Amino acid sequence: MTLRIAEIFGPTIQGEGALIGEPTVFVRAGGCDYRCSWCDSLHAVDSAYRHTWTPMSDAEIWDEVLRLSGGQALTVSLSGGNPAIQDFAPLIARGRAAGYRFACETQGSVSRPWFGDLDTLVLSPKPPSSGESVDWAAFAACVKAGQTARQMVMKIVIFDEADYDWAKDAHARHPDLPLYLQPGNPDVDPESPVDPQDLADRLEWLTERAMTDGWFTPRILPQLHVLIWGNKRGV
Amino acid sequence: MTLRIAEIFGPTIQGEGALIGEPTVFVRAGGCDYRCSWCDSLHAVDSAYRHTWTPMSDAEIWDEVLRLSGGQALTVSLSGGNPAIQDFAPLIARGRAAGYRFACETQGSVSRPWFGDLDTLVLSPKPPSSGESVDWAAFAACVKAGQTARQMVMKIVIFDEADYDWAKDAHARHPDLPLYLQPGNPDVDPESPVDPQDLADRLEWLTERAMTDGWFTPRILPQLHVLIWGNKRGV
Repeated sequence: MTLRIAEIFGPTIQGEGALIGEPTVFVRAGGCDYRCSWCDSLHAVDSAYRHTWTPMSDAEIWDEVLRLSGGQALTVSLSGGNPAIQDFAPLIARGRAAGYRFACETQGSVSRPWFGDLDTLVLSPKPPSSGESVDWAAFAACVKAGQTARQMVMKIVIFDEADYDWAKDAHARHPDLPLYLQPGNPDVDPESPVDPQDLADRLEWLTERAMTDGWFTPRILPQLHVLIWGNKRGV
Repeated sequence: MTLRIAEIFGPTIQGEGALIGEPTVFVRAGGCDYRCSWCDSLHAVDSAYRHTWTPMSDAEIWDEVLRLSGGQALTVSLSGGNPAIQDFAPLIARGRAAGYRFACETQGSVSRPWFGDLDTLVLSPKPPSSGESVDWAAFAACVKAGQTARQMVMKIVIFDEADYDWAKDAHARHPDLPLYLQPGNPDVDPESPVDPQDLADRLEWLTERAMTDGWFTPRILPQLHVLIWGNKRGV
């Protein structure tokens, strides 16, 4: 069995969410059941890039993770695209046997039994600005599958007021999931630089929004990789 | 009994370390047994500012925390200066009874029984660039006092190669403490703006340093409050 892999890179720090700052090797899966308007990983989503995705066995992926990490156990993040549309159970089993930790980031549209084997499951339902709509029954199935993961969190990207209000509803559906909010990044062209001041301004806006609203539940975090590297790939 | 308080502010997000992004009210204690060369809170450290520190009872501090948080339970961070040179046990007892969570950040030079009542104890031993030197016996006493805290971590600020090497030794002394590294900020004048690009560059340097070294243990995080607000006080 082979998996479609858009890129494998690292180690570098996880730039966002619950594991922010954590040294990580990223395995980015090719293919997605969503097409968010502001997607920052189109090269792993749009089928126009399909020819750039490499079919790899779990043994081949694992060899590359081992090479990049020098054989030192660290966190491997399964991202995409939506990694849940493929079967990562064999890779996770291989890596965990060697002491590696596994995280996975997915929108929560497709549930997998291997969610329960993860160290960190990040469920990231997409708000209205994405142009997608959430199937909450499918999402609940993901939460159920992830019950035995070491940690499971919800992360929501916020572009505007509508997204902010939506995030409150999403949290109300799953109040037991620790919540992370992330200001949206409208500058996703890998060729154009990102102004760190813009990123700071968006973080300030979202922070002020939640604080003046008296909503102290979510942690609010920027994308550090965008701060450091803009939208460059492979970092 | 009164405490010397330099400022109480928030809620705003915690800008650094284990609770990065967490909505927090900060209680900054006045007074410190250290005088780090790059201290970013001199107004709470240098006795020249002593006249600006307000003597407050724990009831008065608690009233202000309640007012700022609108009575909604959140995380209260005890910072300084070195908060451990004063007795915060009564404030912590008051706040915890109301469902608030408490974090404390201290260099680890003075141990307190109330460390064990904290939700988060951040021990931040100071590297060579600070001009201070660590009493490791006193530090170990802090670790012992914090054993019953919900989480206890080590955070180290890194300005240069010497600090980086020193952090490895510090980690080796207390390998069970989750480790956070933070690039140093040389621009601590509250009157002068901070260039977000400089902050990004320092984060990139430290990330590259650890990754190329194959040191995947620490989480590496910037100071988000500096990114957003520069060195302005009260945010």
